[in-house]
Amino acid sequence: MDNRPIGVFDSGLGGLTAMRTLERLLPEENLIYFGDSRNAPYGTRTVEEIRALGLANAGFLAGQGVKAILVACGTVSSNAMELLRARFPLLFVSVLEAPCAEAVQSTRTGRVAVAATEATIKAGAFDRCLRELDASGRLTVFSKACQSLVRAVEAGHTRPEDPEAARAVAAELAPIRDFAPDTLLLACTHFPLMEDAIRAYLGDGPRLISVGDAAAAALSAQLRTLGLERRGGPGWRRYCTSGEPETFSRLAAGFLGHTITAERQVPQDG
Amino acid sequence: MDNRPIGVFDSGLGGLTAMRTLERLLPEENLIYFGDSRNAPYGTRTVEEIRALGLANAGFLAGQGVKAILVACGTVSSNAMELLRARFPLLFVSVLEAPCAEAVQSTRTGRVAVAATEATIKAGAFDRCLRELDASGRLTVFSKACQSLVRAVEAGHTRPEDPEAARAVAAELAPIRDFAPDTLLLACTHFPLMEDAIRAYLGDGPRLISVGDAAAAALSAQLRTLGLERRGGPGWRRYCTSGEPETFSRLAAGFLGHTITAERQVPQDG
Repeated sequence: MDNRPIGVFDSGLGGLTAMRTLERLLPEENLIYFGDSRNAPYGTRTVEEIRALGLANAGFLAGQGVKAILVACGTVSSNAMELLRARFPLLFVSVLEAPCAEAVQSTRTGRVAVAATEATIKAGAFDRCLRELDASGRLTVFSKACQSLVRAVEAGHTRPEDPEAARAVAAELAPIRDFAPDTLLLACTHFPLMEDAIRAYLGDGPRLISVGDAAAAALSAQLRTLGLERRGGPGWRRYCTSGEPETFSRLAAGFLGHTITAERQVPQDG
Repeated sequence: MDNRPIGVFDSGLGGLTAMRTLERLLPEENLIYFGDSRNAPYGTRTVEEIRALGLANAGFLAGQGVKAILVACGTVSSNAMELLRARFPLLFVSVLEAPCAEAVQSTRTGRVAVAATEATIKAGAFDRCLRELDASGRLTVFSKACQSLVRAVEAGHTRPEDPEAARAVAAELAPIRDFAPDTLLLACTHFPLMEDAIRAYLGDGPRLISVGDAAAAALSAQLRTLGLERRGGPGWRRYCTSGEPETFSRLAAGFLGHTITAERQVPQDG
C-alpha cells in the first residue's frame, strides 16, 4: 500500500484519455495530471527539446511526491524513456510497451499500422517495440506521421461531420487505408478524440488501439502486483496546465466526461 | 515495505557482479539469482533466441514471487526490455539506463567507449541510450563487440598475468585504446572479472564502469523511493543455474567473494 499520488503528463490535453482510464480503473488513487499546453505540440520539436520538456514535466511531478509516472505522450515515450528512468527512481509506464503488446496480441493478419507524430515516427520506437514483441516474426508494420490530426484536435475539429476533421483524416490516413491493417495503433494520445472520424474513414475493419488506455491498464496491473495501490476511499484528482487554465478546463471536459477546474503550473526546464 | 525477494538473471556467472553489489547495498533483501549457464553465451545468438531466453528467465523468477528483476545481462538488456516490461507487471532494472547515466556524468572529454557482446553492439541500445542521456550533444561514442573476452572469462582466463587473458584483451581492446576514451562502459557483466587485465592494457587513463554495479545501485535507489524495501534482519540468498551446480558454485565464489551452494533449475522457454 502506498498513499502517494500517481502523476500523468502529456504535451497538452491528449493524455487526459489515459487519465480518464486511470480514474475508472483506480478510483482510490490520488491522481495528478500535468498538460504542457504552453509548449504543445511536441511532435514537431527536436529530440533535444523533447527530452528537456520530458525532464521538466517528470521533475514537476516528482516534486509533487508521486510514486509513479504515466508518460501519456507518444513523442516523449519514443524519445526519452531511458533518460527519465535514469534520472528519477520512480515507477514509469510509457505508452509504448503495453499498447504494442496489445496490438501484437490483437492482430490476426499481422498487418499493424501506427499513426503518430513526426518525432515519434522519426524515433522508430513503436516499430522497434512491435518487432521486439512479435515472437512469430510475421508482423508487417506501417508507420505514418499524422501531424495535421494533432492540429485538428487542438483546434477542436474532431467530429466526423466537421469538414475540417474529415479532410485531415482523409489526407493523413489514405496510405494507412491502402495498407489495409487489421490493427491501428493510435500512438498519439490526441488521436482517440478523432476516433469517430477515423472510424468513419477507415470503416469497421481495423481495430483501433488507444495507447493511453492500454498504458493506464498496464500501470494499474503493475501497482497491484507491486502492492503499491492506495486504499482508503475515493482519491483526489488535480489537473495542472502550463497554458490557460480556463481554456484547458473547458476542453478537458470533452476528454474526461466530467467538468474540472485546472490550476496553472509552470515547471522549470531541465 | 515488501518482503518478496528480488530476482537477478544473466546468461551465466557474469551477473554475479551485480548480485555482489546487491548483497552489499541491500543486506536485508531476499535475493535469488538465476544463471542460464546451459544456454550461455547469449551474445552470439539471434535476437529471437535472446528474447525467448529472456522471457524464460524472467518467467522463472516471476514464478518465485519476486517483486523486482535486475536484468544483469547486457545482451538481454539491449534486445528485450520492452518485451519483458510488457509481459511481467514487475519492477525491472536493466544494465542500460543507470550505467549510461553514470558514463555521461563521469566523462570529461566526452569520449566514451562501450565494450559488449556482438548482439549488444548490433542492437545499438547503449549508443542510443548514451546519446539520449547526453544533453550537451558533445559525446563521441565508440562501441565494440569483444566476444572473445566472454570466452576468456568463461574459460577462467581473467588475470593479467595469464597470457591467454592478456592476448584476448590486447586483440579486442586495441581499437578502444586507439580511440582514447576517458570512460569505458564494461557493458557485459563478464568483463569486470577481467578488470585488472583490462586496466593493465589500457593504463590508468580511462575510468571503467561496471554495468552490474551501476544497475544494482539504481535498483536499490528505486526500492527505497518506492518504499518496497524489505525490513527484518538479514535476507536469504538463493543461487540457481541451468548448468552444473558444482561448477557454478566453484566459479561463483570468485565473483561473489564468498562460497555458495548453487541449485539446479531449468526454466521452460517462452
